Amino acid sequence: MTTKDAPSLQDRFAGPPVVSDADVYARQGFGRSTGVGARPAIIVVDFTNSFVDPAQFGGGNIQAAVTATARLLAAARHAGWPIAYTRVVYASDGSDAGPFARKVPGLLTQTEDSQATQIVLDLAPRANDLIVRKQAPSAFFGTGVLPWLVGHRVDTVIVTGATTSGCVRATVVDAVSHGFATVVPSDCVGDRAIGPHEANLFDMAQKYADVVDSAALIARIT
Amino acid sequence: MTTKDAPSLQDRFAGPPVVSDADVYARQGFGRSTGVGARPAIIVVDFTNSFVDPAQFGGGNIQAAVTATARLLAAARHAGWPIAYTRVVYASDGSDAGPFARKVPGLLTQTEDSQATQIVLDLAPRANDLIVRKQAPSAFFGTGVLPWLVGHRVDTVIVTGATTSGCVRATVVDAVSHGFATVVPSDCVGDRAIGPHEANLFDMAQKYADVVDSAALIARIT
Amino acid sequence: MTTKDAPSLQDRFAGPPVVSDADVYARQGFGRSTGVGARPAIIVVDFTNSFVDPAQFGGGNIQAAVTATARLLAAARHAGWPIAYTRVVYASDGSDAGPFARKVPGLLTQTEDSQATQIVLDLAPRANDLIVRKQAPSAFFGTGVLPWLVGHRVDTVIVTGATTSGCVRATVVDAVSHGFATVVPSDCVGDRAIGPHEANLFDMAQKYADVVDSAALIARIT
Amino acid sequence: MTTKDAPSLQDRFAGPPVVSDADVYARQGFGRSTGVGARPAIIVVDFTNSFVDPAQFGGGNIQAAVTATARLLAAARHAGWPIAYTRVVYASDGSDAGPFARKVPGLLTQTEDSQATQIVLDLAPRANDLIVRKQAPSAFFGTGVLPWLVGHRVDTVIVTGATTSGCVRATVVDAVSHGFATVVPSDCVGDRAIGPHEANLFDMAQKYADVVDSAALIARIT
Repeated sequence: MTTKDAPSLQDRFAGPPVVSDADVYARQGFGRSTGVGARPAIIVVDFTNSFVDPAQFGGGNIQAAVTATARLLAAARHAGWPIAYTRVVYASDGSDAGPFARKVPGLLTQTEDSQATQIVLDLAPRANDLIVRKQAPSAFFGTGVLPWLVGHRVDTVIVTGATTSGCVRATVVDAVSHGFATVVPSDCVGDRAIGPHEANLFDMAQKYADVVDSAALIARIT
Repeated sequence: MTTKDAPSLQDRFAGPPVVSDADVYARQGFGRSTGVGARPAIIVVDFTNSFVDPAQFGGGNIQAAVTATARLLAAARHAGWPIAYTRVVYASDGSDAGPFARKVPGLLTQTEDSQATQIVLDLAPRANDLIVRKQAPSAFFGTGVLPWLVGHRVDTVIVTGATTSGCVRATVVDAVSHGFATVVPSDCVGDRAIGPHEANLFDMAQKYADVVDSAALIARIT
Repeated sequence: MTTKDAPSLQDRFAGPPVVSDADVYARQGFGRSTGVGARPAIIVVDFTNSFVDPAQFGGGNIQAAVTATARLLAAARHAGWPIAYTRVVYASDGSDAGPFARKVPGLLTQTEDSQATQIVLDLAPRANDLIVRKQAPSAFFGTGVLPWLVGHRVDTVIVTGATTSGCVRATVVDAVSHGFATVVPSDCVGDRAIGPHEANLFDMAQKYADVVDSAALIARIT
Repeated sequence: MTTKDAPSLQDRFAGPPVVSDADVYARQGFGRSTGVGARPAIIVVDFTNSFVDPAQFGGGNIQAAVTATARLLAAARHAGWPIAYTRVVYASDGSDAGPFARKVPGLLTQTEDSQATQIVLDLAPRANDLIVRKQAPSAFFGTGVLPWLVGHRVDTVIVTGATTSGCVRATVVDAVSHGFATVVPSDCVGDRAIGPHEANLFDMAQKYADVVDSAALIARIT
């Protein structure tokens, strides 16, 4: 059975979270803070060329998020925080493709040596940064990110990258599930479309992470 | 550092995904179908008393989703599909509480013997259904759901439950990441607030799951 | 196909690791120390009535390991180290039984309210200890142990319990894989049979954990 | 604290599992069969140059296991069974090294482009085989093996490779924990030292896997 409901769903997509939505959450006690611990690390999710380029998976406010992340990384390096990067990389023969790649077939163009999967120059990794390949939304899934966090005795995961409504959110859910205080600097995450970006910041702020401006984080470091 | 950005975020929360958002996704090739395989199973996420009751974590369209799920389960039992249920359960001494429970302190009231954590009567489990306790959003995290799916040779995970913008979505992301074709019957998932419900159906339809009406699934079975 | 090789395997089982085995490992650089970090936690694996009772899954040196663990726990509580316990618990309808329970059918007797699955009195848990149910060998698999370790900012996992050649070892492999320095107090782990106990201590000391006497750990604390 | 107990442990290492050990297991009901399902896959664990070469991590009966595995793979390819390979690969800057690499520092020589980490020529992978890098013992840990198995609707995992007492066993424990019937063709797994090889075949046959001869598996296929 092949389902064709996505278009009809989009037609049905009428309303955003409105003030009353936030009220419901407030009344039920959501949206408290997890705080920021003593040993933060930064995960830079999928800031590769393909996720900045609007002709591939980019667009929206992603380039702006790259620029803000560059400032945050400079401060984080100064403070000695561990930094990890993820890249979406599929085997050129598609041997590691699953249902996620069936939903989004363009993912199969993300191969090891393509220009698409290289981390953007503005955020070039340095020696001793962790760089992992992934095929699933979350930075934790099928990668070495978790033991790296444990090994660095990290207590707080700061998630930047693209997209807010995709791999950033999946990473945030996994971070808090694994027991880490989780922070999303809202200007350091971006999306190809602003509606999902905002909707997911709302969800994450209510349930999973402290959503802050990167300036506040940088002020804390310096 | 205690961050207090959730309120300001909610004030900033202005826009929903609009037509142009769907266009961006369509242009980049999102929203294809994963299909439905030969051996589906159903996961019923957190349809406990507390997630129906508007005075606890319920409200919105959750009761309607329970009613639709009851119809789907009847058909699924007839077809012999495996069925799993999740309950949010925390230890009464809070020993298993982490940052997720700091974001949402009310979760700590969800203890084993409380009325809150019992599955709603309309969806009462039967012998040989799997019932798991969880402390994280995803039905997969820290539970026996995955080996149960593998053991039943399931290829397709159908996710129902509450809330669409929370534990349903986290479960869907994990299902597709683990390699399962994933289906969300949109009338069998519910949320305390409709904006997040719709925004998350949009995200899931674009990236992770086939979003369908339960009538279509039931028609397929019977 | 039902295979019946276990008996023939046992017949073929001839030799133990001998001096030359240790030489091979030494020459290839195995057996270094992971050290003990600043924030240890203790996992007490499956020290329930059934794993002490020789008529069920117990025997060998398991009771002696319980006694040694009681001393270690007293010191650990004094030092404020977090303590977690695991119990093997299967649903009474067998809904969560998989291939592990097909290999060892007696596991299905381990139900929630049976005397078999209660933690032995000598090691009775206290408020705020973590207690998890499991159906797989490792304390990490399908449980909340990992986020609990992360939430307590643990850097070193000390594994006690039964059996050395089963759930203790599986837990040790997962602990080191997840990035924790891992310690096995050799007198606090036990097995129904001494050959496998010794063989697994050898493997763990070579590859995964620091194998020490509990007296050394206690001396470190007090 | 640096512990130095491995040597003393090795001195203490006296006994092998003897007949009475097997008796204890038989009396407690261990060692039944998980059977072989309808959709097997093969995982080839760490059969890279370094794990064959006695001057690196090889020796013992590993080369013989490679030869037997080549025969099994030929039959498996004929039958269309999915095949996955693992390689131990660490970043050249050591950014992904954890406590496992502290126990076995030589692992850090296993870098992407070294001759050491290339799969042995006799078992050269073909297009559409899965090849994953790993830094932990188990083929499942931090890799894409699990979703690949699910995506291929595999119900039975056949584990070959090196070493029996290390990464093979860790993979076997994870396979059965994840719900797969698990098979170890005893002549297709090898170890640098025969004592641990035999001791781990004993453990796996009792608790986790059907241990068979590869000829029996091949006869089943052809």
